[in-house]
Amino acid sequence: MLLDDLRRRVGDDCLVTDTDVMESFAHDEAEWAPYGKPAVVVRARTAEDVQAVVQVCIEHQTPLIARGAGTGLSGAANAIDGCVILSLERMNKVLEVNPLERLAVVQPGVVNDHLRDHVAESGLWYPPDPASSPWSTIGGNLATNAGGMCCVKYGVTREYVLGMQLVTGTGELVRIGRRTAKGVAGYDLTGLMVGSEGTLGIATEITVRLRPLRAEEITVAGFFDTMVDAGKAVEAVAAAGLTPSALELVDRNCLKAVDDWRNMGLSVDANVVLLGRTDAPGDTGLAEAEQMVQCFTDAGATYAVRSEDSAEGDALFAARRMAYPALERLGPLLTEDVCVPKFQVPTMLGRIEEIGRRHDVLIATLAHAGDGNLHPMMLTAQGDEDQKRRSLAAFDEIIAAAIELGGTVTGEHGVGLLKLDGLAAEQAPEVLALYRAVKRALDPHNILNPGKGIVA
Amino acid sequence: MLLDDLRRRVGDDCLVTDTDVMESFAHDEAEWAPYGKPAVVVRARTAEDVQAVVQVCIEHQTPLIARGAGTGLSGAANAIDGCVILSLERMNKVLEVNPLERLAVVQPGVVNDHLRDHVAESGLWYPPDPASSPWSTIGGNLATNAGGMCCVKYGVTREYVLGMQLVTGTGELVRIGRRTAKGVAGYDLTGLMVGSEGTLGIATEITVRLRPLRAEEITVAGFFDTMVDAGKAVEAVAAAGLTPSALELVDRNCLKAVDDWRNMGLSVDANVVLLGRTDAPGDTGLAEAEQMVQCFTDAGATYAVRSEDSAEGDALFAARRMAYPALERLGPLLTEDVCVPKFQVPTMLGRIEEIGRRHDVLIATLAHAGDGNLHPMMLTAQGDEDQKRRSLAAFDEIIAAAIELGGTVTGEHGVGLLKLDGLAAEQAPEVLALYRAVKRALDPHNILNPGKGIVA
Repeated sequence: MLLDDLRRRVGDDCLVTDTDVMESFAHDEAEWAPYGKPAVVVRARTAEDVQAVVQVCIEHQTPLIARGAGTGLSGAANAIDGCVILSLERMNKVLEVNPLERLAVVQPGVVNDHLRDHVAESGLWYPPDPASSPWSTIGGNLATNAGGMCCVKYGVTREYVLGMQLVTGTGELVRIGRRTAKGVAGYDLTGLMVGSEGTLGIATEITVRLRPLRAEEITVAGFFDTMVDAGKAVEAVAAAGLTPSALELVDRNCLKAVDDWRNMGLSVDANVVLLGRTDAPGDTGLAEAEQMVQCFTDAGATYAVRSEDSAEGDALFAARRMAYPALERLGPLLTEDVCVPKFQVPTMLGRIEEIGRRHDVLIATLAHAGDGNLHPMMLTAQGDEDQKRRSLAAFDEIIAAAIELGGTVTGEHGVGLLKLDGLAAEQAPEVLALYRAVKRALDPHNILNPGKGIVA
Repeated sequence: MLLDDLRRRVGDDCLVTDTDVMESFAHDEAEWAPYGKPAVVVRARTAEDVQAVVQVCIEHQTPLIARGAGTGLSGAANAIDGCVILSLERMNKVLEVNPLERLAVVQPGVVNDHLRDHVAESGLWYPPDPASSPWSTIGGNLATNAGGMCCVKYGVTREYVLGMQLVTGTGELVRIGRRTAKGVAGYDLTGLMVGSEGTLGIATEITVRLRPLRAEEITVAGFFDTMVDAGKAVEAVAAAGLTPSALELVDRNCLKAVDDWRNMGLSVDANVVLLGRTDAPGDTGLAEAEQMVQCFTDAGATYAVRSEDSAEGDALFAARRMAYPALERLGPLLTEDVCVPKFQVPTMLGRIEEIGRRHDVLIATLAHAGDGNLHPMMLTAQGDEDQKRRSLAAFDEIIAAAIELGGTVTGEHGVGLLKLDGLAAEQAPEVLALYRAVKRALDPHNILNPGKGIVA
């Protein structure tokens, strides 16, 4: 019945029912997050396809889970038994790049790096740069309000989404938001949709704000003996009034995994590396870089240098970008995403180390340190159930520590399935009730990714 | 009964029932927007006062209209007969300024300029700068998502509100949002509250994001014979890839009103003046200023110059800031707030002139031109009913033209009462229905500023 109706509305060539193929659409990259067996995967080509799928799902009271590339890390795109998975990857066209208005209009399946390269030809820049940018889609970035490295200066996805065409929870195809630089007509539904993990509507066309291409970045690298020293350097950069265009932390475990994989010759004699960048033009950039070196040194760096050779800086940043896939090769990887106030970064980094030691878990840590957004990753051996249990215990303790230090359980990956308990621990019952009220208002049939993102 | 309950809950010294005093709290500065007679004005001192007032209004099914300084221009703060007006002006403390986290926590009644001055002592800057900044409050700025001059580079109020303490439509006192640099736990209720004109909740404490103080600005002034030429200069600045820190347009009528009032000796021999600013540091700023001069000249400026003397630039900007009060002295002033795409700025400026001529209405125009946000103001003589009728006709035609050119009916002043028809003309019925669904979800008793902001 469901399949017949879908076939009639969107055509047979959009449907996937092969069990093995469906399996590859049934989950994102969140380790150990549960997922079920979809009834069907629909590979939409048009907004009208998406609308038809929503309408059929309403008729059949069938849960609908939209997804982009499936690179999420929270389980938000995971299947529920009998659900419809709606893949938006085929809707991958850049429809407009407008240098004068500094915006682009894209379909949701456009890959983040593809958009960045495409608009660069017009002298423009799309800032949000999650580590998944070579694969993840703008639709998925919108659903998770994705962050990245340059967000410490330029903000996250929500700050770049001006408007969208959207299929609502009642199956209507509408436009929300704007193309103008400013606009305050009506409630900010656009911002509400960003980060809502496909639970309030499905974007079928997205208008993003762009910036002019910026000056070449200068990189500063600092080596530290301890996490706490590196954390103090992060605090010092903020206290000095600097706004780096990136301030990333990579620990020894991450660098070793990259070097073992790609043999990059990163002979880094440090337990922790901080990578700062500035894109301020001319002398201002040079001065900012020097100030960052000073902050690193004052905080106890064993070595701190402004990289004159942009290739060297690029190599270290490339290693940082490769850390996640390099670690993933080694076995199941449980990724944390807490975000704490900047003054708590040294304390939180210390707590993560202590939690790892106490549970005898190998934790590799990456961080958008300048934002206080930390990604400790619990590495386990495939099939080692005891290690898995200890990793999950460490995961929960890190969440609890972040809340205790005034932080949040998720800085940029989203709640999905993995952070539902964390969300309930972090926020007041009255606020959770407001989320449910919004959900009921915009998805009255409760078919859009039910059970994800907010506490039922 | 209502008064008794309020007296019991918040104390007699918070209540105002004198008819003349209440009249001064019964409306904002929107010309000719209707307003009624409040039953009482409550001057709250604490969040608990606000909560008590909301709870009493729920019990009595009485409309509740929160207000700051009443400088709004849309009628959003206007009284309904028998309503409770809740003034937040007494809640005017800056509770925290945190240079490391780059945030401040303020009560809603803090005046915008006061916050800016206060945080400057810590080397920090609160960007949103509506022309009302000497009087308007952060709570009111939040309710309207206020813009201003520097928004062309730095964005509007929504981009600076991290979180808030809030009394909900069901009378609960909760905290939403965050203090961390990033965070994606739960739906973006904070962004939703910003710009909702007191229809979804009442902020009792606001956490705002700050930036480091910036470099001294350089001013560029250009004189133009026609609106359309000035519009072309605006387009040229955007096309050149420049991001000025302000790009304001002031016409002869505005300058004359300021000069007549304050005798500033602004002997400007131009029909239209464009004022550009750059705050890029060092050589970059000088180069940007030169490029702006070139854009002005190429677009047909009769005179264009980079002001070496910052006092001269400041004087022209001061005149621009004084234009609104200077014009208000002359009689009823109906202020428009349309925003169009940048490429439509010359066309829209031409249309405004044509509409003024056709209806024989004197229109003075101010604009945040770099954003495409135009404020044509219809000047009338007190008591001239025919002129009033013609002004209102011009007002409606300007709105229609903005929609036709792909713009919005309100760039920064909000919908309030004056733009309800405009909102309905601009947006699809399905989108208006989404607003109503959100309103019902978060204000189920329909007591928070009913009839404003969205189309019932």
